[in-house]
Amino acid sequence: MADETGIEALIALMARLPGLGPRSARRAVLVLLKKRAQLMAPLAQALAEVALAAKDCRICGNISTAEICPICADPARATGEICVVEDVADLWAMERGKVFRGRYHVLGGTLSALDAVGPEDLGIPRLVARVADEGIREVILALNATVDGQTTAHYIADALAGTGAQITTLAQGVPIGGELDYLDDGTIGAALRARRRL
Amino acid sequence: MADETGIEALIALMARLPGLGPRSARRAVLVLLKKRAQLMAPLAQALAEVALAAKDCRICGNISTAEICPICADPARATGEICVVEDVADLWAMERGKVFRGRYHVLGGTLSALDAVGPEDLGIPRLVARVADEGIREVILALNATVDGQTTAHYIADALAGTGAQITTLAQGVPIGGELDYLDDGTIGAALRARRRL
Ligand SMILES: [Zn+2]
Ligand SMILES: [Zn+2]
Repeated sequence: MADETGIEALIALMARLPGLGPRSARRAVLVLLKKRAQLMAPLAQALAEVALAAKDCRICGNISTAEICPICADPARATGEICVVEDVADLWAMERGKVFRGRYHVLGGTLSALDAVGPEDLGIPRLVARVADEGIREVILALNATVDGQTTAHYIADALAGTGAQITTLAQGVPIGGELDYLDDGTIGAALRARRRL
Repeated sequence: MADETGIEALIALMARLPGLGPRSARRAVLVLLKKRAQLMAPLAQALAEVALAAKDCRICGNISTAEICPICADPARATGEICVVEDVADLWAMERGKVFRGRYHVLGGTLSALDAVGPEDLGIPRLVARVADEGIREVILALNATVDGQTTAHYIADALAGTGAQITTLAQGVPIGGELDYLDDGTIGAALRARRRL
């Protein structure tokens, strides 16, 4: 590619995106180079704006371009329900399911002794406080059906035991070992409707 | 995703890249959102810089960040050979083969009556002029082994007939119907070494 350090550096950055290896990053950059005005410049602009504006919601941990995310800011979503998810990707997957109308708590991971991830790292004390402060009637634990996900779900259920909130969990439709973000949207809705008490 | 128009717009732009559908674009944007300082901001910067600086080389049609691309600007590459390729992707593939040390002519397509692509659109008169002006001894036609590619190769061979330059073409290793950009680097080198007179 003949000492094109700017273009080479761009390919190297693109290759760090999931789903793009070195070869597909090169092909993506070629398409961008051919559509500099129509695609490359708008993409640069959109990335720069979002990189500057995006922040973690200080209530729920969702990522948005506001201090308080649109879900926490929407009064219609004060339904007395909080759905606990591991990751923003799972929140997005729940939203695509179009069934849940309450609010979220994004853990940002699961409890892990190995990686020294404790309850504070996942904002679990903050979640417990919200349940009391916001008069939450139901906490839906929508964690992945992995060992770490289920361990974390049980820890949260114990932590919330004294609050009086009903603790439920997604049931039907989540395959063993499956990850929420890979489920089709209809399955997520079905799993939510058929949720059961933990 | 809840009315996050900036983030939604970014996902829509990312989904226009080859190799990224709507789902993988979403996953890529999530990774970027989590690595705003380490990945998203540098990628925005690299894209903006390249979008501004990239241009088509006015000699050969390669894309680089200089008026005259590094290959045309490098005196060591005045070997008396020009390699004719359909696309910048093919030029990059040839360079990865690390065998060819001359210069290029990037057609930007193939002759097509259907799409009204004529010799001027592919810069063929400019190529003929270069052969005389630069004292070119050999023109290697490295076009794809498709019908359009081979039709274009024959047209160029005819157009160069009066110049005295030897016209060769890649031979061994290019599979029938295959495209250069998908070949492994070693095969490209082998095809170039075994090139034959047309
Ligand atoms: Zn929020
Ligand atoms: Zn050039």
